[in-house]
Amino acid sequence: MAQATRLKDHACLIVHGPDQPGIVAAVSALITRNNGNIVSLDQYSSDPKGGDYFQRVVFHRPDFNAAVADIEADLAATLEPYGMQWQLTDQATPKRMAVLASTSDHCLLDLLWRHRRGELPVTIPMVISNHTNVVADVRSFGIPFFHVHSQGPDKSEAEARILELLAGNVDFVVLARYMQIISEDFLDKLDVPVINIHHSFLPAFIGAAPYRKAHERGVKLIGATSHYVTKDLDEGPIIEQDVTRVNHAMTAADLQARGAYVERAVLSRAVQWHAEDRVIRHGNHTIVFD
Amino acid sequence: MAQATRLKDHACLIVHGPDQPGIVAAVSALITRNNGNIVSLDQYSSDPKGGDYFQRVVFHRPDFNAAVADIEADLAATLEPYGMQWQLTDQATPKRMAVLASTSDHCLLDLLWRHRRGELPVTIPMVISNHTNVVADVRSFGIPFFHVHSQGPDKSEAEARILELLAGNVDFVVLARYMQIISEDFLDKLDVPVINIHHSFLPAFIGAAPYRKAHERGVKLIGATSHYVTKDLDEGPIIEQDVTRVNHAMTAADLQARGAYVERAVLSRAVQWHAEDRVIRHGNHTIVFD
Amino acid sequence: MAQATRLKDHACLIVHGPDQPGIVAAVSALITRNNGNIVSLDQYSSDPKGGDYFQRVVFHRPDFNAAVADIEADLAATLEPYGMQWQLTDQATPKRMAVLASTSDHCLLDLLWRHRRGELPVTIPMVISNHTNVVADVRSFGIPFFHVHSQGPDKSEAEARILELLAGNVDFVVLARYMQIISEDFLDKLDVPVINIHHSFLPAFIGAAPYRKAHERGVKLIGATSHYVTKDLDEGPIIEQDVTRVNHAMTAADLQARGAYVERAVLSRAVQWHAEDRVIRHGNHTIVFD
Amino acid sequence: MAQATRLKDHACLIVHGPDQPGIVAAVSALITRNNGNIVSLDQYSSDPKGGDYFQRVVFHRPDFNAAVADIEADLAATLEPYGMQWQLTDQATPKRMAVLASTSDHCLLDLLWRHRRGELPVTIPMVISNHTNVVADVRSFGIPFFHVHSQGPDKSEAEARILELLAGNVDFVVLARYMQIISEDFLDKLDVPVINIHHSFLPAFIGAAPYRKAHERGVKLIGATSHYVTKDLDEGPIIEQDVTRVNHAMTAADLQARGAYVERAVLSRAVQWHAEDRVIRHGNHTIVFD
Repeated sequence: MAQATRLKDHACLIVHGPDQPGIVAAVSALITRNNGNIVSLDQYSSDPKGGDYFQRVVFHRPDFNAAVADIEADLAATLEPYGMQWQLTDQATPKRMAVLASTSDHCLLDLLWRHRRGELPVTIPMVISNHTNVVADVRSFGIPFFHVHSQGPDKSEAEARILELLAGNVDFVVLARYMQIISEDFLDKLDVPVINIHHSFLPAFIGAAPYRKAHERGVKLIGATSHYVTKDLDEGPIIEQDVTRVNHAMTAADLQARGAYVERAVLSRAVQWHAEDRVIRHGNHTIVFD
Repeated sequence: MAQATRLKDHACLIVHGPDQPGIVAAVSALITRNNGNIVSLDQYSSDPKGGDYFQRVVFHRPDFNAAVADIEADLAATLEPYGMQWQLTDQATPKRMAVLASTSDHCLLDLLWRHRRGELPVTIPMVISNHTNVVADVRSFGIPFFHVHSQGPDKSEAEARILELLAGNVDFVVLARYMQIISEDFLDKLDVPVINIHHSFLPAFIGAAPYRKAHERGVKLIGATSHYVTKDLDEGPIIEQDVTRVNHAMTAADLQARGAYVERAVLSRAVQWHAEDRVIRHGNHTIVFD
Repeated sequence: MAQATRLKDHACLIVHGPDQPGIVAAVSALITRNNGNIVSLDQYSSDPKGGDYFQRVVFHRPDFNAAVADIEADLAATLEPYGMQWQLTDQATPKRMAVLASTSDHCLLDLLWRHRRGELPVTIPMVISNHTNVVADVRSFGIPFFHVHSQGPDKSEAEARILELLAGNVDFVVLARYMQIISEDFLDKLDVPVINIHHSFLPAFIGAAPYRKAHERGVKLIGATSHYVTKDLDEGPIIEQDVTRVNHAMTAADLQARGAYVERAVLSRAVQWHAEDRVIRHGNHTIVFD
Repeated sequence: MAQATRLKDHACLIVHGPDQPGIVAAVSALITRNNGNIVSLDQYSSDPKGGDYFQRVVFHRPDFNAAVADIEADLAATLEPYGMQWQLTDQATPKRMAVLASTSDHCLLDLLWRHRRGELPVTIPMVISNHTNVVADVRSFGIPFFHVHSQGPDKSEAEARILELLAGNVDFVVLARYMQIISEDFLDKLDVPVINIHHSFLPAFIGAAPYRKAHERGVKLIGATSHYVTKDLDEGPIIEQDVTRVNHAMTAADLQARGAYVERAVLSRAVQWHAEDRVIRHGNHTIVFD
């Protein structure tokens, strides 16, 4: 993969915690003394006095794999006094992304396409759906497909089966118009980030059937929102949003067809930013260094 | 005024009611036999079978003033069998628009500017505010300003005073960031359309302090909504909406400053469309023939 | 196909020519006396005095097929004195759309998808490409694929082969990122509308490599334009345009990946509007009754 | 002014030059050893290998005024070996902005308004116009107005008079729909940045009458572009752009009225970013750390 080659010996360091003097200098001195060269650095403080500090640094370090243990030890020693959290990832290793889908195929297939074109820095170990209509499409991309039946009010068996498939195999999960509500227990056990695409401009039209609700309310724009999934339905940290114009003559079905383009574009950006470690979660917000 | 001259002998006819065969033909034949020439015609049916019908026709009729009584009689006779409602307005007569404001001046002054430039087909008989900070600005445009004090929980005295000023003098009222809740009783007595600008993308962030709420929710776009005022706060028929992009580094105050441009653009379009009889209310929706 | 059923006995009438009094009345009376019921009517005059007149009417007429000859005769007789052009199409008969593509697949596959979902009121008799990379994808949709080799400066043989395939089989052609310049002779012989998607906000960045040019110029938005193809490269009548935001950190390749979403959305709207007879060409402009 | 107080003892440091290892560390160590605390840091490299490096750092340093000479000496000594350029500005000192205007008042008055509201971190020592229609408006804001007559093909006398007024009195100049072409000689002598607002989405519709050209070309969006003025008309580095939707029914005058809102919003953002030292020029590009 061209991108992996291009990003050989590149690492991404995320640092966040309570803001305090000297932290940028400490981090950049650390990278320099470990023979790294900073390729890009983004930083944000919610408030320089007593606020929160967020930093994303991409640096190039020849023979990174050999050095990673030393760098991590240095990070632990250096950042502990500041009380900062950090995460170091090898940019040459794409994240493993599973996709969960239902009958709608547009968001799912768009991700598979982009992946095939080499635009998304991920691997896709599997697609899971509670329906079977997309099985041929998914497998034509050379990607494993698993059908997990989910019917009736008790989702625990389906969730257990999905967890079994995902456990240890993925770094994050994308709900590409997956029309099942996910339990808090599932999220806890899964323990990797889950990204959803909601077909409205949240917080407008939370819950089911947002295009129908948008039509009923007579809005002049419709939108889509990609967010991290939390136990509170449609309330998780927003990663990206966008809208498109509609008019009085459009039916709810027209809104849905028009909105599909927004959903795909919004989800695509959110997934790419997450895959590139550009999104930092903070409370119910995101810091996006795009 | 150039526009009045340009629109001399032009009339706007709005027709709406239950859809049924032959209604377009009946209306256009009526205009033809009354020596009118159709300049523009927009039509929309919510459903051709048993739906609602909406039509806006602008026509030119030499010596319109002399003919208006005959045309109205013909309209009554022609449309009665169809059970249609209609409204005929002389395009050369600008509507009378009052503006209610509070301390924020950006929406108010934008309307006064556009009016001074001849872009808004209205007259502005007065501006009313519960504050006095804009009095000099307003009067510098040659427009009467009235201060109506409004404090404490009981708004009835203030509303009575405002009604006294408006009664018979205006065709519609614009709330240009007027920060007082208006009573149902006031709306009933006023009995002309009232247009509001809300500083969020409704139905997101209904109620007070929408920029603060948008900041707390971490949205990636902020918006503004212009709507007709009804007794249900922020729930009236939406005329126009738009959004602008924001990011995590912006404070609530930044959102407010950025949003002010969207508020003005959205309110300006809504007011222009209303003034040009391009908006038809239907239930809690609008049909906008822009 | 659900749409064909839904649009049974619906016809679309396009009328355009020199504006003059009574034309709306004449057309709507004609529909009424032929037992049609107007479902929607859009009209536009470039200037009511001496301008051009454009009208789109969709009407329902039970047993339309039996009546079409009579209606056409009536149209000819009625509109001849006005010097108007007209076109009557059966809405239940989808247009036949051929797609020409090269190596880029995103616009092509998006059209095939939308067609499979029943969102595009067309049939797709064939896809033609000067490359073979998309053959499996196209045939997986059950759509015929033809490879027409085109290399070297002389395109006449390739164009002749394409014409042979298209002649009589299609109602319009879509260039879905087809990277060959089309000759005036080809357009003349083809004699059906050809729709292109250009990957810039025309007239900015006419010609080849628009994303590279946009990057070099340092623009803050990139766009896409769908237009009818004429003998003048990238100069034909514009049907639809849209843009998306970019920033200084993006490479030309990033612009291309981001722009692909705009290209698809813009082409999709343009194709749908054309397929629904919502676009009228006038000189180098379009009237779009969306 | 609240902002000046808020930004007391805050400095903005811009660094740019050839990218090389250790530069971030060197700059942040410098700030730390001078008792500064980094409030925000943005960085961009056009290419980590042999590319260009751009950095903006805002830091807080108690008693900054007493320390500025030492910090500047340290910067010179530290950055000289790297061959980097730098610029240090006191954030508590607003830049002095002159505005040049002609008959159009919307961009001019919008800047004056924003300034009056305390939203723009600038002082406005003067407005200069080649017309007199805005004199009363400008002076009502308490801002000096100078009329400089400019007629006929020879602009040298007018330019000399304007230079006389501006020399030494301003940090940058905004052309708020100033309809005179500015000579290269004028720019050389003025020697401060000049920001223009062009009423099209550049590079589309370069030169005069862009709304008329946009109308003739039949575009579906119109835009505005704010850029630094160079000797090449409408070819300078772009700071910000935006667009708004239009349709076939709008006249060139309608586009102009609609476009005025985009012009103001775009110019406002460009001026604010420049005033806050968020824009770095590089060749014919800008790096905007917004």
